Amino acid sequence: MSIKAEERVSHQKLGQQLELFMSIEEAPGMPFYLPKGMVLRNELENLWKVKHQRSGYQEIKTPIMMKQELWEQSGHWDHYHENMYFANVDEQKYAIKPMSCPGAVLIFNSKKRSYRELPIRYAELGLVHRHELSGSLNGLLRVRAFTQDDAHLFVREDQIEKEIDKVLDLVDEFYSEFGFSYKIELSTRPEDFMGSVEAWDQAEHALEAVLKQKQVAYQVNEGDGAFYGPKIDFHILDSLGRSWQCGTVQLDFQMPEKFDCKYIDEDNQLRQPIMIHRAIYGSIERFMAILLEHFQGSFPLWLAPVQVKILPIADAHVSYAEDVKKQLEKEGYRVEVDDRVEKIGLKIREAALQKHPYMLIVGDQEIERDKLSVRKHKVGVIGEMSMDELLEQLKSE
Amino acid sequence: MSIKAEERVSHQKLGQQLELFMSIEEAPGMPFYLPKGMVLRNELENLWKVKHQRSGYQEIKTPIMMKQELWEQSGHWDHYHENMYFANVDEQKYAIKPMSCPGAVLIFNSKKRSYRELPIRYAELGLVHRHELSGSLNGLLRVRAFTQDDAHLFVREDQIEKEIDKVLDLVDEFYSEFGFSYKIELSTRPEDFMGSVEAWDQAEHALEAVLKQKQVAYQVNEGDGAFYGPKIDFHILDSLGRSWQCGTVQLDFQMPEKFDCKYIDEDNQLRQPIMIHRAIYGSIERFMAILLEHFQGSFPLWLAPVQVKILPIADAHVSYAEDVKKQLEKEGYRVEVDDRVEKIGLKIREAALQKHPYMLIVGDQEIERDKLSVRKHKVGVIGEMSMDELLEQLKSE
Repeated sequence: MSIKAEERVSHQKLGQQLELFMSIEEAPGMPFYLPKGMVLRNELENLWKVKHQRSGYQEIKTPIMMKQELWEQSGHWDHYHENMYFANVDEQKYAIKPMSCPGAVLIFNSKKRSYRELPIRYAELGLVHRHELSGSLNGLLRVRAFTQDDAHLFVREDQIEKEIDKVLDLVDEFYSEFGFSYKIELSTRPEDFMGSVEAWDQAEHALEAVLKQKQVAYQVNEGDGAFYGPKIDFHILDSLGRSWQCGTVQLDFQMPEKFDCKYIDEDNQLRQPIMIHRAIYGSIERFMAILLEHFQGSFPLWLAPVQVKILPIADAHVSYAEDVKKQLEKEGYRVEVDDRVEKIGLKIREAALQKHPYMLIVGDQEIERDKLSVRKHKVGVIGEMSMDELLEQLKSE
Repeated sequence: MSIKAEERVSHQKLGQQLELFMSIEEAPGMPFYLPKGMVLRNELENLWKVKHQRSGYQEIKTPIMMKQELWEQSGHWDHYHENMYFANVDEQKYAIKPMSCPGAVLIFNSKKRSYRELPIRYAELGLVHRHELSGSLNGLLRVRAFTQDDAHLFVREDQIEKEIDKVLDLVDEFYSEFGFSYKIELSTRPEDFMGSVEAWDQAEHALEAVLKQKQVAYQVNEGDGAFYGPKIDFHILDSLGRSWQCGTVQLDFQMPEKFDCKYIDEDNQLRQPIMIHRAIYGSIERFMAILLEHFQGSFPLWLAPVQVKILPIADAHVSYAEDVKKQLEKEGYRVEVDDRVEKIGLKIREAALQKHPYMLIVGDQEIERDKLSVRKHKVGVIGEMSMDELLEQLKSE
């Protein structure tokens, strides 16, 4: 699929046209999900939950506010407080979380851990808030409130490569679901790094070894790593030829040190695990914006908020349309009936703007023959079908 | 099921024992969901999503912070600001939402509405924050951060009774899933009410008419309504004979007035819809606490975080146990293997404390005969079973 840049419609405009989300001046950069946007979001979250469960992740949920002192301990206060929001609770300063890492660490630290438990993989759909200048806000692409599809892995040194390898597989699996190709970049030690040069060398070597072993193409960005460790970033390529950094996997020796994370090794000694931070969508909001622009609102069947739109020609055909709707819903499809008293031409034109994958037209002829007139988005009329034939067609996608 | 009060274990203790949730002093009243607690929460949320979708609700999501002026408009500032938290954004005061109603109203108001669209039923799993004194905090029962299973219905006057009736059915359907019986209370006009006596009389009559028509028993609490309208509350009865107010359905003529909600009626005139607020769990956190105490941690199969625990007798039996786990997981069950190098007696005792519905013991004998030794929680050994027999047994629950 390739779309010319000049024909591109922005995700904001598409979001409005398809009634997916809205923003208001009483909460700039904090999007509202309208019902259809919520369907899309739920599909993304469900996919995420299923794939992570299958891949040995455990889902957790941590509070969105915690005392400031915790953020001082984590280093976020020093490196990030200008982007954070604060609230007073019991006359103490609480930070509204900009990241979910400390929460995951506290759960790791909540009990004694054995080497046999590792790797522990915590996944969290974490609602985070980060300050952005109001002038830079942009629909779902640049926001102040968003949900990160975060995960924090606690691993032994000998598990690093295997776990990075598995993350790469999972990233590949996810992006394939949307038909995205992507580029890989390895970012190495920056000038203001934390920790020892030896630890950095080892970590960079581990990341690079996995990339080489998998024989995937990648580019090295010298000095572009995070201050706490090197990382591999994943850049999605969209239908307009643009690239978007979405996924990331980062090795972190610092946070386990700051929070004194420990596990008991085979020799009954306390050892420090290494932490891997990773995200695949990056943020649900931003990924939705990218999907919207990539597909230009013409979502594949499984993602479409309304999969089948039924258009009765006149009021007399509405109850038949409702019956068809019920049958399709029973099979798990998302269906809407346009029961307005409007001309069928107008109904078809408006439904086309909504980019539903399928449109069914129902009038006297269709009811008489017990058939449905089926139109497919971007294809046009594909003919008359019985309910069984339609279900076959939907299933084949 | 009846449990003697003196044998009761608190939900805090059970939550710790079963590793469901934790609290820390850096965020009092803001619980952390551990992996197993998250499984339980996800089951409750999934049930909620499926039932609401089937009942014609549309899911939405609104921001957790909005400018203070919006909360002045809604009346929350006047009536509730002492229980609210605030943060500064762009040097303006934002309130962290204590309720989700204004968000739903803003979505209703985001476009022109026709009488044909009504009733509109917006459902939101809304994360809210409300200040409670630190001394009153109590596990998941009394918290500062929780998720309300909220819904806001915008209805025409002639739809009130039918919609209330449907809410009552949905409440009944939900509580039946958990085997809860419940009491119903109707709360009428308080002394400091808003609006006209006529509107109140009409609203109270509507609520009472539905209760009478359904022929359900209810108690009247004179003067106990919310300041904006009368309500019906639902009090769950637990295994200890205690009652807990969870669900509520409230008629509201005030909020649509404050936010100037309108729809276009059959005669092309602008009219004001009536709003119905309702919750069924009340709060996910509190409902989980009630479930924990009601079942005393012995969850029915569908809710149990770990449904089957497999205990290999020695290290040599671990790979067989892992195979069994994979087969069960393929059928959709949640399974754990205790692969520690511990005596089987200890493994059984510890697993029993976790109250898993099923325990499978795997040793030489079982592997030889290709059978599983099955124990059922609260029943004990129920014998040797093949995988097919076990699946049959699980399915029968």
